[in-house]
Amino acid sequence: MELLCCSRSIRPLFIILFCFSSALLQSSLVAAKARHFKWDVEYMFWSPDCKESVVMGINGQFPGPTIRAKAGDIIVVELTNKLPTEGVVIHWHGIRQFGTPWADGTAAISQCAINPGETFVYRFMVDKPGTYFYHGHYGMQRSAGLYGSLIVDVADGQKEPFHYDGEFSLLLSDWWHQSIHEQEVGLSSIPFRWIGEPQSLLINGRGQYNCSVAAHYSSSTSTQCDLEGKRQCTPDVLHVRPNKTYRLRIASTTALSSLSLAIGNHKMVVVEADGNYVQPFAVDDMDIYSGESYSVLITTDQNPSSNYWVSVSVRGRLPKTPQGLTLLNYLPNSASKLPTSPPPVAPLWNDYDHSKSFTYKILALQGSPKPPTSPTRRIYFLNTQNKVNGYTKWSINNVSLSLPATPYLGSIKFGMKGAFNSQVPPEKFSESYDVMRPPTNPNSTTGSGVYMFAMNSVVDVILQNANILTVNVSEIHPWHLHGHDFWVLGYGDGKFTEKDVSKFNLKNPPLRNTAVIFPYGWTALRFVADNPGVWAFHCHIEPHLHMGMGVIFAEGVERVRKIPNEALACGLTGKLMMNNYRP
Amino acid sequence: MELLCCSRSIRPLFIILFCFSSALLQSSLVAAKARHFKWDVEYMFWSPDCKESVVMGINGQFPGPTIRAKAGDIIVVELTNKLPTEGVVIHWHGIRQFGTPWADGTAAISQCAINPGETFVYRFMVDKPGTYFYHGHYGMQRSAGLYGSLIVDVADGQKEPFHYDGEFSLLLSDWWHQSIHEQEVGLSSIPFRWIGEPQSLLINGRGQYNCSVAAHYSSSTSTQCDLEGKRQCTPDVLHVRPNKTYRLRIASTTALSSLSLAIGNHKMVVVEADGNYVQPFAVDDMDIYSGESYSVLITTDQNPSSNYWVSVSVRGRLPKTPQGLTLLNYLPNSASKLPTSPPPVAPLWNDYDHSKSFTYKILALQGSPKPPTSPTRRIYFLNTQNKVNGYTKWSINNVSLSLPATPYLGSIKFGMKGAFNSQVPPEKFSESYDVMRPPTNPNSTTGSGVYMFAMNSVVDVILQNANILTVNVSEIHPWHLHGHDFWVLGYGDGKFTEKDVSKFNLKNPPLRNTAVIFPYGWTALRFVADNPGVWAFHCHIEPHLHMGMGVIFAEGVERVRKIPNEALACGLTGKLMMNNYRP
Repeated sequence: MELLCCSRSIRPLFIILFCFSSALLQSSLVAAKARHFKWDVEYMFWSPDCKESVVMGINGQFPGPTIRAKAGDIIVVELTNKLPTEGVVIHWHGIRQFGTPWADGTAAISQCAINPGETFVYRFMVDKPGTYFYHGHYGMQRSAGLYGSLIVDVADGQKEPFHYDGEFSLLLSDWWHQSIHEQEVGLSSIPFRWIGEPQSLLINGRGQYNCSVAAHYSSSTSTQCDLEGKRQCTPDVLHVRPNKTYRLRIASTTALSSLSLAIGNHKMVVVEADGNYVQPFAVDDMDIYSGESYSVLITTDQNPSSNYWVSVSVRGRLPKTPQGLTLLNYLPNSASKLPTSPPPVAPLWNDYDHSKSFTYKILALQGSPKPPTSPTRRIYFLNTQNKVNGYTKWSINNVSLSLPATPYLGSIKFGMKGAFNSQVPPEKFSESYDVMRPPTNPNSTTGSGVYMFAMNSVVDVILQNANILTVNVSEIHPWHLHGHDFWVLGYGDGKFTEKDVSKFNLKNPPLRNTAVIFPYGWTALRFVADNPGVWAFHCHIEPHLHMGMGVIFAEGVERVRKIPNEALACGLTGKLMMNNYRP
Repeated sequence: MELLCCSRSIRPLFIILFCFSSALLQSSLVAAKARHFKWDVEYMFWSPDCKESVVMGINGQFPGPTIRAKAGDIIVVELTNKLPTEGVVIHWHGIRQFGTPWADGTAAISQCAINPGETFVYRFMVDKPGTYFYHGHYGMQRSAGLYGSLIVDVADGQKEPFHYDGEFSLLLSDWWHQSIHEQEVGLSSIPFRWIGEPQSLLINGRGQYNCSVAAHYSSSTSTQCDLEGKRQCTPDVLHVRPNKTYRLRIASTTALSSLSLAIGNHKMVVVEADGNYVQPFAVDDMDIYSGESYSVLITTDQNPSSNYWVSVSVRGRLPKTPQGLTLLNYLPNSASKLPTSPPPVAPLWNDYDHSKSFTYKILALQGSPKPPTSPTRRIYFLNTQNKVNGYTKWSINNVSLSLPATPYLGSIKFGMKGAFNSQVPPEKFSESYDVMRPPTNPNSTTGSGVYMFAMNSVVDVILQNANILTVNVSEIHPWHLHGHDFWVLGYGDGKFTEKDVSKFNLKNPPLRNTAVIFPYGWTALRFVADNPGVWAFHCHIEPHLHMGMGVIFAEGVERVRKIPNEALACGLTGKLMMNNYRP
């Protein structure tokens, strides 16, 4: 590793970053604090929104336990699968897994799913302070409730570039009463059955389906929820003192919904996005897409005799789901004292200008790492809705991702044939494609090919949105990259052209791991392929990924060492390893 | 194998049988007809009882495709798991798997569950003509609909010991609208949630929940089902010609229900049970417990201008489920012509004398193999309902079966430590135990120990029923043995005593693979441990097995050769085999 780092002279910044991370990991394995967790994943009855459902929990909790660590720590999670018949994995969203690509927790990509009754040990370093989360990454198990928060504080002796007196986590999700098993069958049926809109929005796993926190202000006949009960759905009230500054760590693990967050009467100052500091800016409401995380600062400078709304609403789709609500409780007021006015009204669901305005404000904090000035390679990903043998799918450049039975990390490392489509998928699409209309030929194909990058190459990805199968509809997709952060160089409307390159922001583009494409628009990303491993890059909407909306990236797999055997005990890698066995 | 067969001189009959089977298998591998099947297991929407559910199907069919073969044939099923996140196996119920114990299809016992996306090849000989079936044997996947018929005809040149002009299969099951995932969670919850009674009974996967085939005769307001439609729930009508003899092949794969079958105005002559010929006897109605199969002959000698009811009802539990119905249609009558009288009324659900009377009539056909006159070893299994750490369980001699992550077949074969409880579970219970009352101490323990038998030893099993946790209740349990048939030597009421041995029927006890214990009663079985492998012996009621009502038998595992690696790619056997791998 040392040799690798020091023998290269190009792109010194990234090399330094890479060496730094590697060195940290190596030293950490000896010196850093290891934080141990023993988790059992199991199904349980739970009432996230006051209506009982079967929920995937960890150690009897929903959401799962919060991991809290300091930058440089080693996290060790011994994960035991207590599900009756299903495999399971957990992905540590936003953690780049330098040197531990087998711990990325993506079934069929970084490892085999953990079988029922078996234990897999995730061991990885959290190298960068920030707001993260974890979640299932097999089938639609994230939608079943398999998620929790992962908070990394600055290392001892380090400081955040902003001050706050206290903090809260707001892990946001959406919830369906239909089981994920039934959802999965519907998505893979002819005729296609869409999962529909969620029944409720959850804040820290708590929502209200058959009562409303704001019934008092509603013209409907819904009943007022109890704000101080001890039910599983009782809102998680934020208790604050007047005239203090609080950090809200916000993360969205929604299956589908784009959200708008607002706190009545309070400005929010955005300071962090996806574990990277941003140039602070104040807003009244903010958009959060699935897979994103933010930190915002609020100052409790409002009338202290009142409480205030914390409100979450659906954006980007015609909302059919009630607002998710809790309270900002100014102590010593009673936590059940309702605010004096109704909850904030979210911007119109399809006011995309409002969304873009927010997104465009997110820029890197001064002093953040800057992108290389030019890419080694630029690839173009057209996002389309298609049909494959009558099934409704999402495709990238006309290929809908179908994961193989053998994890890529093993099959690429061992140079195996036949584990996945050997053909490299297309890296651009037809220049004549009309993104403003449904595809003229909706038929697409499934595939499992891999985009292979030269180690340390600089990759530009242009995500191009388009019209879906229905006329005059183009949807929002938040794309999430594993194993890396990327710089978001720019956004645009309509079809990307080479002229748009000149408008790329190379001065202070934000580093993210998730970026949205707006309807009919494009988004340009740049990242350095500096992390040996195999990495998913996909729409973070759970049913969209299930329908094939993703691609597989790989780089430097030949440098990956010490993959635990148990990560590869399935499929062809399992066969290969066992064929050496002579009893 | 030859050496083994010929070098032994004790118990010549069984040795001959064993040699015969082995020889058949060996010759068959060269000469017998191999019947190939390619199956995909998948979830699909289906309406078994006219109400849509998610059902586990094979190749888009529910029930799965029928396998039809001749004695001596080799069945080859390439089973591909198309479930999103669940493993799967298929057990070939009643097939003894001589020489192929890894093909028995029991997860955690004979093999690792097949992972999603992977294919496992079941290859085994069907050595004995008869009426069999197959079903899932992982979690409660049988209850999800993973089952089908397996019919073995006599070999070419052979004849059945009875005549018939035509035949029908009646595969019987019970159906719930709650998903098996939710059922599984309820059974493993505190407080315990029982699955309740089924919503409907299915004949060949077809039942009627929101209409009745006999609404015409009912005082309720239920609507009359269409008898000639093409819905998934349209009854499977039996079209017959007058004055012929038909063989009905009946098998029950119910999750819970004991059933009574009757055919209006027609006697049924029982000729086969569990793939063994029995002394023919005629009945008006018959009991069928889960895991059992029968052949009966009916003669169409009734008024040919009428059709007749085929009716299935719940027995042994207070029935809350409507009768399952279809018609015996005397051609050329219309299939939708209703019988002239209402469906047969089943015997009272708790008329156990009626049930015993039927069961006691089942005796081996003259000339059938007779049991050894005395056992090598006799073990006593007390069946109790218990609590383990607050969970409701079933226990055998105070041990509730908890399956390990590593299949026994591999861990025993490889002599591995730690794969399962090394302590042999108790082979008798306290003489002072009062079977007529709830346990004085309801607490029990879970375990995974194995009953090991000397190869070719003769084993007697006394199954002793008892009162459950509720006073004055003792339930019916049909016990099914894998890998063997057993002779049913006798039944009795109350607690078994050594005096009962003298009453054992050694003259013409029936050979079965499933035998029932009646409430508060005992059942005595004898079998020869002549099949190298590891074999489940368990209550065939799906939730009871899920709650631990089973034991594990093993014999001659050191003689087992050529276990396919992929059967053992999980747990400790997977680790062992892979640890030899040096890339």
